[in-house]
Amino acid sequence: MSKMKIKLVTLTAFLAMTAVTQGVQLKDVKPGFAKNVIFLIPDGSSSTVSTLTRAVYNDGESLNIDEMASGMVKTYNSDTFIADSAPAGTALATGWKTQDKLIGVKPKAATLNGARVPEVGDELAPAASVLEAAKLDGKAVGIVATSEVLHATPADFTTHSIHRNNYSVIGEQQVHQNLNVVFGGGKSYLKKDNATEANSKKRTDGEDMLESLQANGYNIVQTLDEMKSLNKDFVWGLFAEKDMPYDLDRDKGTTPSLAEMTEKAIELLSKDKDGFFLMVEGSKVDWAGHANNPIAITSEYAAFDKAVGVALDYAKKNSDTLVVAVTDHGTGGLSIGNLKTSYNYPELPVDVFTKDMKKAKFTEVLTAEKISKDKANTKSLAKEMLGLDLTTEELNMIEKTQKTSEIETILGKAMSERAHLGWTTNGHTGEDVPLYVYTSNYANQLTGTVNNSDIALYIAKAMNLDLDKATDELFVSGKKIKDMGIELDIDSTNKFQPVFKLSKNGKQYTFHENKNYYETDGKKVKFNGIVVFNGKEVFIPNAAIKDIK
Amino acid sequence: MSKMKIKLVTLTAFLAMTAVTQGVQLKDVKPGFAKNVIFLIPDGSSSTVSTLTRAVYNDGESLNIDEMASGMVKTYNSDTFIADSAPAGTALATGWKTQDKLIGVKPKAATLNGARVPEVGDELAPAASVLEAAKLDGKAVGIVATSEVLHATPADFTTHSIHRNNYSVIGEQQVHQNLNVVFGGGKSYLKKDNATEANSKKRTDGEDMLESLQANGYNIVQTLDEMKSLNKDFVWGLFAEKDMPYDLDRDKGTTPSLAEMTEKAIELLSKDKDGFFLMVEGSKVDWAGHANNPIAITSEYAAFDKAVGVALDYAKKNSDTLVVAVTDHGTGGLSIGNLKTSYNYPELPVDVFTKDMKKAKFTEVLTAEKISKDKANTKSLAKEMLGLDLTTEELNMIEKTQKTSEIETILGKAMSERAHLGWTTNGHTGEDVPLYVYTSNYANQLTGTVNNSDIALYIAKAMNLDLDKATDELFVSGKKIKDMGIELDIDSTNKFQPVFKLSKNGKQYTFHENKNYYETDGKKVKFNGIVVFNGKEVFIPNAAIKDIK
Repeated sequence: MSKMKIKLVTLTAFLAMTAVTQGVQLKDVKPGFAKNVIFLIPDGSSSTVSTLTRAVYNDGESLNIDEMASGMVKTYNSDTFIADSAPAGTALATGWKTQDKLIGVKPKAATLNGARVPEVGDELAPAASVLEAAKLDGKAVGIVATSEVLHATPADFTTHSIHRNNYSVIGEQQVHQNLNVVFGGGKSYLKKDNATEANSKKRTDGEDMLESLQANGYNIVQTLDEMKSLNKDFVWGLFAEKDMPYDLDRDKGTTPSLAEMTEKAIELLSKDKDGFFLMVEGSKVDWAGHANNPIAITSEYAAFDKAVGVALDYAKKNSDTLVVAVTDHGTGGLSIGNLKTSYNYPELPVDVFTKDMKKAKFTEVLTAEKISKDKANTKSLAKEMLGLDLTTEELNMIEKTQKTSEIETILGKAMSERAHLGWTTNGHTGEDVPLYVYTSNYANQLTGTVNNSDIALYIAKAMNLDLDKATDELFVSGKKIKDMGIELDIDSTNKFQPVFKLSKNGKQYTFHENKNYYETDGKKVKFNGIVVFNGKEVFIPNAAIKDIK
Repeated sequence: MSKMKIKLVTLTAFLAMTAVTQGVQLKDVKPGFAKNVIFLIPDGSSSTVSTLTRAVYNDGESLNIDEMASGMVKTYNSDTFIADSAPAGTALATGWKTQDKLIGVKPKAATLNGARVPEVGDELAPAASVLEAAKLDGKAVGIVATSEVLHATPADFTTHSIHRNNYSVIGEQQVHQNLNVVFGGGKSYLKKDNATEANSKKRTDGEDMLESLQANGYNIVQTLDEMKSLNKDFVWGLFAEKDMPYDLDRDKGTTPSLAEMTEKAIELLSKDKDGFFLMVEGSKVDWAGHANNPIAITSEYAAFDKAVGVALDYAKKNSDTLVVAVTDHGTGGLSIGNLKTSYNYPELPVDVFTKDMKKAKFTEVLTAEKISKDKANTKSLAKEMLGLDLTTEELNMIEKTQKTSEIETILGKAMSERAHLGWTTNGHTGEDVPLYVYTSNYANQLTGTVNNSDIALYIAKAMNLDLDKATDELFVSGKKIKDMGIELDIDSTNKFQPVFKLSKNGKQYTFHENKNYYETDGKKVKFNGIVVFNGKEVFIPNAAIKDIK
């Protein structure tokens, strides 16, 4: 009886202690509740995309991600309304809303509500990502993407650059970041002789990053079978020269799915007794949105949802695992319903929207690529690959162009019309997006409408990490280095390979942009972290500076 | 020390008991945790509408509703993909996904995932709403809307009809439902001689519902001041002949805002010691969406959000109050960003989207109404009322039409272009919509992606009500009545006033469609509930049938 009474009192006290006024907010979650975090990003998705995917690819049954819905997320940049992946991913990774093109660095202008303003002199300085902070804490870390791994979102978690297209910088940083698992596309961007690339994506420093990977002791795999046979981490899986094919167009025998990559990444990373952080991007949901391609966007989202399923399976068996999923922004302004359904929408059965889409065996993108220059096969390919009976008008439009991207758009439009779908733009859109969180204890499930930057803070808190401390530890600025009485000389003679010469008491230490070692006394000394140079200021990990002090 | 130990054990046990695997699901919430429920519905809204409203009307600061985001809601009907308000509101009110046009009755076809299938013979039978179940349980109940109160959503909570436009049926049921508070528009639809109405919305039975209200003992108020001076319930506030004006166009001195109506309704309803249920609809968010009018849709959502603020204020002071908000479906396919922003979207400051919208003093709707037949004032009115400098082309388009609805659309399009907004349809759209829930204890905050019909079940569970039992209690079918040995004769001589003659042991009881009394021995006997007739079958409250048995 008296025990009972104590119990009731305790319960009440506990409830009073934990009860909050507005769901579970960032301030209320328990620090360190998650040993592992899996963060999945369906780039450029929206609630329309998930709803349509459910109808076309899941017979209306719930998707894996559905049960995780827990709030909404504001996606805007530090200074503009509609986000691009570089700044939006930076917010998700580092807790800093930032500006267009910027990868993992603080903004110059932070004018909008909830955007943190950097200290004077700290503009464009690198900010540690949750991945970097987790690595610093001894956890295993990995990234998985279907784009090239150098693309904005995976780059946001692993690198720091003032332009998303600086693939020379981004690739080199990734190669020297001591990442435990990297799976995705982008092999060609790592090669020395990638002269076929667009200028900004060309390797400018004469170095071959595939060789650097090998020098760094990485295992490199390139096929599904090779990936499957892996049993330890410190591996890069490069499954395409550039981006990986759309899931629907993939050779299932040789190219892994996002879910297969995710499963293997979890298997390898979870061997670390300190826990792990894994970022998984369904990169090309966004690309399909830009092209207004309904088949590509939904099939790619369906593939993303399978990866979510893999993450959830793991988390349900391992209660110390947090799973978060959120898109960085909307793309394309897709709607279920268009001008043709303005007045009869409530009467239209689901089939009216889905039956033509269900016939497609491949995406609009692969179909467009397969159409020959003379267009002799347009009609038959559209039928075979997309299940589309193109009209004479549509065939004529395709006849008139040699641009694959335009053919994609025409095919996407043809499918959208049959499926009664609307699109408003070829760019991104500014609406809040759904937040998805899974934890084994709902007392830690973030709810409410949060800023994209709050997600990074939430994930950091979940792993009991401090992003500001990690930033201080990983990125000591040249100014601070000098304040410590260390001489610093920046040698940009070779502008593609700037060199930073530090010296104290006559002893010299040579650092290189994007690399994880310094040279002194003819020796190479490695450290955790990388040297970041934003064109004006250099940032060097404290672990290296300590050797000098 | 030993007390401490007990405490820890208890906490662990408590956590284990309450921990669930996927946030807080319907099955996990505590029955009866809420004495009061306020359910707010911004009809036809979307995450784009709330995001844009925040930017235009709140300087980017959070809206009242933002903190409540807790999941997503599937909006489709029992048999079609894109919902209309009648079936979507029925799902939210009764827990039954149903078909187009149906108000508070079960579907004939329930083919889609999560749609409950009625028992054979139970098609088109009325289903009790959470409002009716709360009333049956002794709580005070009310509805507030900015449309006529007979419009689909408020009708879904208070009536049962096989067509949303049967205003003759809907109005009469509302008048006899013993509702404690009714605030909104629609006075003309209640009058006997409303011959100017469209056929379906005409009163067909020769009765005057304003007289019936008075006969039922209601206080009727028609201005803001009259409403403000109210100090007890059993009141109808009818503030417009049809729908109330848009909030931006409202005469602030005479016409109450949605927030003012909500505040007064809560004040009056909360006097009931058994608690209350209140439904509040921001009805015309949807209307603005159909017309693709950006000023009307965002200003109306801003007004809705103020009503949410009133509800939250009350709930934060009264921890036994649950607040739920959810739109029934999307309307218009609005996006922030359009074809003009396809390639420069990340560089555009917020002002590019908001500065023209911020100049508007009135909606596109009132502006269109004020434009004279000769169009002499178009240019000046567009400037004065909307802040729009119309182009010659836009002026010419307006010149060519005498239809106010077309002028509205042209003005909306002009504003949308300046604000870089996209629209895809004049109808509804099929995407999942955000779920908003506030409770003082997050252990009862519903999360995940739920069906619209689940919201009714959640609200019922919160108030410890059983909707099926309420349906059985309120709607005993003619078939069941006969099975009890009661004779039943349906007299449809006057098809607008069907009469139901029940008799047992020679004693006769006469019931009337949509009314809350029967006649016997020359006396009128009132009961809780109403007589519903779906054209084939009659349904009578058990409270009346008991008198006969």
